[in-house]
Amino acid sequence: MAPRGFPLAHTLLGIALRLFEEVPTVQRILSTDLPAHVGEKVLVEGHVHRVRALKRVAFLIVRDRAGLAQVVVGPAAGLPEQTAVAVEGTVVANPAAPAGAELHDASVRPLGEPAAPLPFDVHRPALTATLPTQLDLAALALRHAGRAAALRTAAAATAAFRAALDARGFTEVLTPKIVGSATESGANVFALDYFGTPAYLAQSPQFYKQTLVGALERVYEVGPVFRAEPHDTGRHLAQYTSLDAELGFVRDHTDVMAVLRDVVAAMTAAVGGPEVPAEIPVVHFTEALRIAGAPDDEPDLAPAHERAVARWAGGDFVFVTGYPMRKRPFYTHPDPARPGYSNSFDLLFRGVELVTGGQRLHRHADYLAALAARGESPEPYAAYLDAFRFGMPPHGGFAIGLERFVARLLGLGNVREAAAFPRDRTRLTP
Amino acid sequence: MAPRGFPLAHTLLGIALRLFEEVPTVQRILSTDLPAHVGEKVLVEGHVHRVRALKRVAFLIVRDRAGLAQVVVGPAAGLPEQTAVAVEGTVVANPAAPAGAELHDASVRPLGEPAAPLPFDVHRPALTATLPTQLDLAALALRHAGRAAALRTAAAATAAFRAALDARGFTEVLTPKIVGSATESGANVFALDYFGTPAYLAQSPQFYKQTLVGALERVYEVGPVFRAEPHDTGRHLAQYTSLDAELGFVRDHTDVMAVLRDVVAAMTAAVGGPEVPAEIPVVHFTEALRIAGAPDDEPDLAPAHERAVARWAGGDFVFVTGYPMRKRPFYTHPDPARPGYSNSFDLLFRGVELVTGGQRLHRHADYLAALAARGESPEPYAAYLDAFRFGMPPHGGFAIGLERFVARLLGLGNVREAAAFPRDRTRLTP
Repeated sequence: MAPRGFPLAHTLLGIALRLFEEVPTVQRILSTDLPAHVGEKVLVEGHVHRVRALKRVAFLIVRDRAGLAQVVVGPAAGLPEQTAVAVEGTVVANPAAPAGAELHDASVRPLGEPAAPLPFDVHRPALTATLPTQLDLAALALRHAGRAAALRTAAAATAAFRAALDARGFTEVLTPKIVGSATESGANVFALDYFGTPAYLAQSPQFYKQTLVGALERVYEVGPVFRAEPHDTGRHLAQYTSLDAELGFVRDHTDVMAVLRDVVAAMTAAVGGPEVPAEIPVVHFTEALRIAGAPDDEPDLAPAHERAVARWAGGDFVFVTGYPMRKRPFYTHPDPARPGYSNSFDLLFRGVELVTGGQRLHRHADYLAALAARGESPEPYAAYLDAFRFGMPPHGGFAIGLERFVARLLGLGNVREAAAFPRDRTRLTP
Repeated sequence: MAPRGFPLAHTLLGIALRLFEEVPTVQRILSTDLPAHVGEKVLVEGHVHRVRALKRVAFLIVRDRAGLAQVVVGPAAGLPEQTAVAVEGTVVANPAAPAGAELHDASVRPLGEPAAPLPFDVHRPALTATLPTQLDLAALALRHAGRAAALRTAAAATAAFRAALDARGFTEVLTPKIVGSATESGANVFALDYFGTPAYLAQSPQFYKQTLVGALERVYEVGPVFRAEPHDTGRHLAQYTSLDAELGFVRDHTDVMAVLRDVVAAMTAAVGGPEVPAEIPVVHFTEALRIAGAPDDEPDLAPAHERAVARWAGGDFVFVTGYPMRKRPFYTHPDPARPGYSNSFDLLFRGVELVTGGQRLHRHADYLAALAARGESPEPYAAYLDAFRFGMPPHGGFAIGLERFVARLLGLGNVREAAAFPRDRTRLTP
């Protein structure tokens, strides 16, 4: 084949466009498909990941969405790293090449060059840039294998969450992110102006998913939730992805825990995470305090207590059930046998709370009583309480913080590494 | 089996709880599974959909997530419609029953009763309540078969969107909904206070999906977008669900259109919609004007023009390409051969714009020139423009408005009927 022509420079509407004299003569293949095309002329497209120049030859490593392709080029054919390129060449088997085969007799056409020298290397095993720099320059940092892998892990875990629930008769729903009252927790909400009316960003789809149990019985949502978190820690984000599920006609919270176990098992299996036992160990809150050596009037588990319970349970997962009612939201269903405690649970993953859930109240009168007991007016909850005026089954659900799950699973030190463009107290860009 | 006991009333923490003396002795089955259990004792759970009282017998129609189950009960066993119930009984074949079988010798236990008479019936073929009332009382209205079907259609279409893109090497991404500048279009943004800094709700994931093409090459997102739409029409929502996709290494917009064709075909197939032809007709904007009898200096297609083009094309779908550059966003790629026109497209579905997309600029210098040509400073776009500093391939994408798609497909008169809890200029609840 004739060598590729150089781009022609055109100026149209003041915009410099580059056209190619020739269009590709072969179909594009992915780097991972190279071994199936040994001896053939192929087109590979991707970014220049790395250039390794030896004395008489240079290797261009091209990264596409599937992996890396090694291209043997002349010593002077170096292009800046991260240049988007199209490479036509002949596939030659080479067990030492990343894909097990490489391209020879290659013609390389730049499709998009960097406008300036790169501020840091993307091809090294670990990024040398600090986390703040990585986040500032996400467009570059996310090209690093480790950062991109975290995004792919989040996508795979989310797909598994959906598939597990689809298989169990759940319907995906989409609910409002702008709400009229800051009901779920007065603090930590973002306020906005909604056509002249004060409104808030939703902290969770809790009320909506409960309402939809009446219509669809089993529902889930994957969506953003917003917390105006004043903390600046490695565990908090101002926007994160909540994997929410809610189901009706449960006996109590243990039915919810059984679904959650299967969902988490599907999620970890999809991303090569730890195996989830058929029966996750369950510890009642009062027993958890005893295990942790904490006073039995503690209202909640401190992080150190959670770690102690995890050590005691062994394995990666343990359920703690029966948290005191006073520490759970007003819609929480009490344990009928021990009414100071609730039909709720946390799922600890490697000693850290990963999922919160439980059975909810389902009778209108119980909601009114629960709000009255907390000295709250039912007025701001009017639209929510409607759902319980129309006949609701016993129900419950859970919420998984996706970025926390991914960070914990991959051993990332900071939840920000599990988000493409994290938002926190001081970060609003990119 | 012994008849079920009546609930015991307990008062715990001021909350009236009802316990049952006996737990169900059989596994729950869904209404649609009744025919497989003829002669067996089973448990069915759901809402009382309708009560039909005859002289000596009454029929309780119970709605669960799969369908309707008919229960033969004594004449006095009526319960208010929408009561959540558990029914144990023996399955008897009856071709006249909704599921082809019904329950006899049934014991019915209420699980959650309505707190007040229902404001409208849910079981009738069409809801008698006006749309505003339906939206006000969504918790009840969404139990109607038609309203619930729209939600299920949205879920199925979304699942098909994802599956089609997953199969083509796309990665799902999740991007910020709070952004630092109202860049994409100055108007119609919701402003909020972000820890003391002005911020805005994202009108689209456009910039983020483009940026992620550099890292993952092919990405999609299903998420909420926000438009402070001053219009109060049947086509506009203040929050809607955008099905966004973006892919790198395209030749031009026609590669994007080919992916879109396959995605829309998968979506309509999943919901029993019209078949999408292997080749959707394509009309250039200039030709569309001619077909519509419009002056050839019109900058855009009016709705009447779109309808004329659809009539001319026949079938449900037609692409219009090459919209004038001045009517498209600054990141739009011009047509190299006719630079006043763009490498963009709209997909019309039954005469209405359903999808917008196109090829984007991919060179940093082209972005600077495009902004300069529009008299805009690059400053507010700094974080976005970074993506193009690091080497980007030719790329493009599209965005499908989910609620519009569902409304158009189901022939709903108002896009609000395709959302569970729509948001518009005057509606912030439920």
